[in-house]
Amino acid sequence: MNIPETMKAAVLFDWNDVKVVERPVPQPSDEEVLIKIESCSICAGDVKIISRGMPKQPPMGDFIIGHEYAGTVVKTGKSVDEYKIGDRVTVEVHKGCGRCKNCLDGKYTVCMNYGDLSKGHRANGFTTNGGFAEYAVNHVNTLSKIPDNISFDEATIITTAGTSLFGIERAGGFVAGDSVAVLGPGAIGLMAVQCAKALGSTNVILTGTRDERLELGKQLGADNTVNVKKTDPVAEIKKLTGGAGADLVLVTSGTSTTLQQALRIVRKGGDITLLAHFDDTVEADLGLAVQNGNNLYTIRGEGKGCTHRSLEMMGEGKIQGKPLITHSYKLDDIREAFDVLSAVKTGL
Amino acid sequence: MNIPETMKAAVLFDWNDVKVVERPVPQPSDEEVLIKIESCSICAGDVKIISRGMPKQPPMGDFIIGHEYAGTVVKTGKSVDEYKIGDRVTVEVHKGCGRCKNCLDGKYTVCMNYGDLSKGHRANGFTTNGGFAEYAVNHVNTLSKIPDNISFDEATIITTAGTSLFGIERAGGFVAGDSVAVLGPGAIGLMAVQCAKALGSTNVILTGTRDERLELGKQLGADNTVNVKKTDPVAEIKKLTGGAGADLVLVTSGTSTTLQQALRIVRKGGDITLLAHFDDTVEADLGLAVQNGNNLYTIRGEGKGCTHRSLEMMGEGKIQGKPLITHSYKLDDIREAFDVLSAVKTGL
Amino acid sequence: MNIPETMKAAVLFDWNDVKVVERPVPQPSDEEVLIKIESCSICAGDVKIISRGMPKQPPMGDFIIGHEYAGTVVKTGKSVDEYKIGDRVTVEVHKGCGRCKNCLDGKYTVCMNYGDLSKGHRANGFTTNGGFAEYAVNHVNTLSKIPDNISFDEATIITTAGTSLFGIERAGGFVAGDSVAVLGPGAIGLMAVQCAKALGSTNVILTGTRDERLELGKQLGADNTVNVKKTDPVAEIKKLTGGAGADLVLVTSGTSTTLQQALRIVRKGGDITLLAHFDDTVEADLGLAVQNGNNLYTIRGEGKGCTHRSLEMMGEGKIQGKPLITHSYKLDDIREAFDVLSAVKTGL
Amino acid sequence: MNIPETMKAAVLFDWNDVKVVERPVPQPSDEEVLIKIESCSICAGDVKIISRGMPKQPPMGDFIIGHEYAGTVVKTGKSVDEYKIGDRVTVEVHKGCGRCKNCLDGKYTVCMNYGDLSKGHRANGFTTNGGFAEYAVNHVNTLSKIPDNISFDEATIITTAGTSLFGIERAGGFVAGDSVAVLGPGAIGLMAVQCAKALGSTNVILTGTRDERLELGKQLGADNTVNVKKTDPVAEIKKLTGGAGADLVLVTSGTSTTLQQALRIVRKGGDITLLAHFDDTVEADLGLAVQNGNNLYTIRGEGKGCTHRSLEMMGEGKIQGKPLITHSYKLDDIREAFDVLSAVKTGL
Repeated sequence: MNIPETMKAAVLFDWNDVKVVERPVPQPSDEEVLIKIESCSICAGDVKIISRGMPKQPPMGDFIIGHEYAGTVVKTGKSVDEYKIGDRVTVEVHKGCGRCKNCLDGKYTVCMNYGDLSKGHRANGFTTNGGFAEYAVNHVNTLSKIPDNISFDEATIITTAGTSLFGIERAGGFVAGDSVAVLGPGAIGLMAVQCAKALGSTNVILTGTRDERLELGKQLGADNTVNVKKTDPVAEIKKLTGGAGADLVLVTSGTSTTLQQALRIVRKGGDITLLAHFDDTVEADLGLAVQNGNNLYTIRGEGKGCTHRSLEMMGEGKIQGKPLITHSYKLDDIREAFDVLSAVKTGL
Repeated sequence: MNIPETMKAAVLFDWNDVKVVERPVPQPSDEEVLIKIESCSICAGDVKIISRGMPKQPPMGDFIIGHEYAGTVVKTGKSVDEYKIGDRVTVEVHKGCGRCKNCLDGKYTVCMNYGDLSKGHRANGFTTNGGFAEYAVNHVNTLSKIPDNISFDEATIITTAGTSLFGIERAGGFVAGDSVAVLGPGAIGLMAVQCAKALGSTNVILTGTRDERLELGKQLGADNTVNVKKTDPVAEIKKLTGGAGADLVLVTSGTSTTLQQALRIVRKGGDITLLAHFDDTVEADLGLAVQNGNNLYTIRGEGKGCTHRSLEMMGEGKIQGKPLITHSYKLDDIREAFDVLSAVKTGL
Repeated sequence: MNIPETMKAAVLFDWNDVKVVERPVPQPSDEEVLIKIESCSICAGDVKIISRGMPKQPPMGDFIIGHEYAGTVVKTGKSVDEYKIGDRVTVEVHKGCGRCKNCLDGKYTVCMNYGDLSKGHRANGFTTNGGFAEYAVNHVNTLSKIPDNISFDEATIITTAGTSLFGIERAGGFVAGDSVAVLGPGAIGLMAVQCAKALGSTNVILTGTRDERLELGKQLGADNTVNVKKTDPVAEIKKLTGGAGADLVLVTSGTSTTLQQALRIVRKGGDITLLAHFDDTVEADLGLAVQNGNNLYTIRGEGKGCTHRSLEMMGEGKIQGKPLITHSYKLDDIREAFDVLSAVKTGL
Repeated sequence: MNIPETMKAAVLFDWNDVKVVERPVPQPSDEEVLIKIESCSICAGDVKIISRGMPKQPPMGDFIIGHEYAGTVVKTGKSVDEYKIGDRVTVEVHKGCGRCKNCLDGKYTVCMNYGDLSKGHRANGFTTNGGFAEYAVNHVNTLSKIPDNISFDEATIITTAGTSLFGIERAGGFVAGDSVAVLGPGAIGLMAVQCAKALGSTNVILTGTRDERLELGKQLGADNTVNVKKTDPVAEIKKLTGGAGADLVLVTSGTSTTLQQALRIVRKGGDITLLAHFDDTVEADLGLAVQNGNNLYTIRGEGKGCTHRSLEMMGEGKIQGKPLITHSYKLDDIREAFDVLSAVKTGL
């Protein structure tokens, strides 16, 4: 494989100042592979990264952004035999340190050495260089092989899918025949709809404010949708669940409003998972959860092998990534991509 | 509703001596309903019941057999508002005592007062009268409403489906993207295939000895099948799982051979569930499980709401009961039904 | 046993109007026993019950209050052989309906038919008559035998102990060698301290505002105490846990302040259980839980056999009830008991 | 710290041929520390290692044996700040690869790359060099700091303690107030007795054939003991548990006899953990487990942080290592130590 010495890469130079510049192609260490990037997604997280920053980001001028990418293995580290040159792969973000209490317990997305490169932690596109470039290096434990029938573009969505799936897993992962309410029809929400259906939920209810997103949710499998601007979601979901409330509520939009809805929508004894970032403190009647025996699970990222699991299910057509891809740009046009995304009204 | 005072019922008079006779129609207590039976299945368990007996059976001459039935609610006990007259319902076997350690812990299929009617336990068709009759009474907590698109005949299969599903639940219930090996293509095995697929497994491998059953398994969703008379299942399943072995092995045929296969087929760190009755002691290399960190889960019956869950999924077409129904008889011809079933070569 | 026809009982006639009056001795049904009450505790819940009410209380003039009691079995229902006349027993509050989804799943403290007597639910001292009387009836599944070395007075504390223990169980129940922070040195908090130690926690940290309660906590096993009026609990607990934070945080005082502390005190990947009633909505930075992968478990009451478990441990001297008993009154003086309790500054 | 270039080490040259020879002192890599060994235990596993071998052992003439050791940190790898020179530490065996499915799931003792050094797996004293030497290197994730009040000798026992504790954890880890039967009074069994008590079990029953070991078990906390040569353990344990059977059975001696006992001793709905190696295939009535809803958990080694947890509890005096230490030798006399150990009648 002919690997050049330099490559094009989208580097963050200052807040909202991303430039495509020439950079050295990185070299994989013994446990890593070098990937020739074929596709890289932008999500809301990236907007935050370039505009306000996230913890432990590399310095301005160094940081190659992008955490949802897919490509072809072009070089393998000395100890790597799990993948070989030519393999089509996609990635998950978190590579834990492998030495802290959480990593040893399988909770690598909440590694206690988050951002500490010297101890082996990497979160590509967050604390280390990412995928808006021609090449990137990844530890083998962050890779998944892409099924033949899935395109590179679609494969980049598995980070989203893995997050949604992890949110269901965290609450037990067994939703066969259950009702699942998904609050918020963003990318995580729409994937949550698909995952819940793929795991056997027979009554997935999606709520939101934008009819076209709710409609898309329906196409992707939601049994019911509720536009909260027009219909009281609490009354409606009670009605749709025979008065009991939803067995599981997935909160993908982090506000006091959605949290309070979740507490009133969930069945007595049912579960809530928070999959959303909450920018502000929230106010809610948590006493309801105590009174009704509801646990509030939380997830960070896409742990427990959920990217692998998602990709397998995508290969079988049980979940789809394509409908979530709205635009497509060349790497050189990344600035335009950010402009378009920032203009989208997200959230509920 | 016009309810007669007597009814036809298939009563066990002696080993293998089932006669259809006239009996009083039973009366529901406060927490029970009276069901007009529309359909009742025979399974291998019934053959054992009439030929050798199971623990705590009612006396010969009294015992109305049949545990997988469906029908219409025709009378409701005083406290019942969960169901109303006219509802189409199907049943699960176990109604726990509600007062022992296991029932209070949600393990009602292993009620510590099994067979003790005075303490409120009932296992219709096993320790109390069942469904080969024109009417039967059931506690409300054993009922499920049948979706409109499901026939009474098909609905009787949910006991089987609930058992298979419970076997997956017991091992965690989260098989999204996993490989699941099902040993034995009997009714439980074929339902296990469907449940595993319905819960997101992407590589279900069914093993057995009868090509036509394996073929049926394939039609019902199995990704791969192995005829163990022609192919070594251990080598084949290792190959089908990239060398690792199956993430979950469901043993639906209880012999030393299948247990030993399970121990060699399962992935290091993977799980095994035993869903089969074992008539004899078994000999196997359990040390393999210790060495590989495999747990062996077991289930009895169809606990944890798995009949409800199965029925919901059946209503959505995610699992099918019809292909498992091989013959159909009138109640008066029950003797013939048993003769035919007893002649079938079951098991692997 | 000579059982009179009437008895003295403390009846709620109006808000804060409890009078000791003559009432018929109740009769046990088939699954119940009649208890001659020897001791009954008052807790903060009772103050709420007589002053503001709780859901589904019996009518004024009928309601015999009191939910933490102990006594001697003097009569047994027809089906009862688990207990015999003369047995010393104590009780837990919740007797589920045994027919709803939650009861069948072992979650009887969040029974979906809470307060519905016709469906068999009972919460003595809340929705049915309780123990401030000479006699009370209880379903067998709410009873525990008192070990010989435990007094009736002490045995009444197991409802509290069972609640604390359930709070730990809900978060996994495995705290061997872990650090556990208990926020609030009320009765639940002091019992939580003892339970955490009895389960192998090696670093129990109790926080509160009252030095004498913290001191009592230390005597009962707390390894460290923090008076939050004098010391910043977040900084202090970080220090006491080597910088990581507590593996488990038990919130026994329900305010925004304690919740916010919990979110900042808990270790990355650690757990929080809410054991407190929250009277008001709370405001807190739940985003911290999402970022750090912390689940928030909640409990209601004393489920999962935790009263039995507590009583066993009390019998072995692993947890103590006596130090939590502050005053003692005759039934006729119940009004005075409430006056004293209401004057106590509770909470943190 | 003055570190020599060579050291004394006990090397396996052929079956049962261990010689103390001169070897280079190993060098820690970036994530490792160098330990000056102060104490190293021999257990039954070591006898197997030198007499018959275990999978993936280093070549004869190279292999320094010993897996239970403690000592002082004398050098730290570049990235290590969790430990510093002078720290007293003890070790667990397994350092997973950190890249396979099991390691990422927290199951590092069943690493799928077991024995593959190139992928980062190490099992010191099994697949890599161990502790019968003056120095050894260890990855940071296998170390635990020794509490001040625990001697090096006693600290070497935490591998055993961690194994016993892991056996309880695997079955849920919540034994407060439960009955726990421990089959086999070997080192694992005696530690299991202590761990069960330390976690709140109120009825620990130890079975075996040697009175002096059972007596030691009693001193270490067993509530009851049964000499199976004199008393039928099944009948006796039923009696000791009010007829129900044990809530949890820990099998520490791997034979058909103990397995069959476990199946008959365990409570309906109770759990069994296999902590023993089984040298041969076993024959048992597994159908009992199916009928009674018993799961059979297995463990390999001392996962889930159980060595850390054990050491913490040892520091508090909740479990003791000293009573399990029977003999003491200098490194030069290791041959004599093996001779003595091999002569001991182990097992039940």
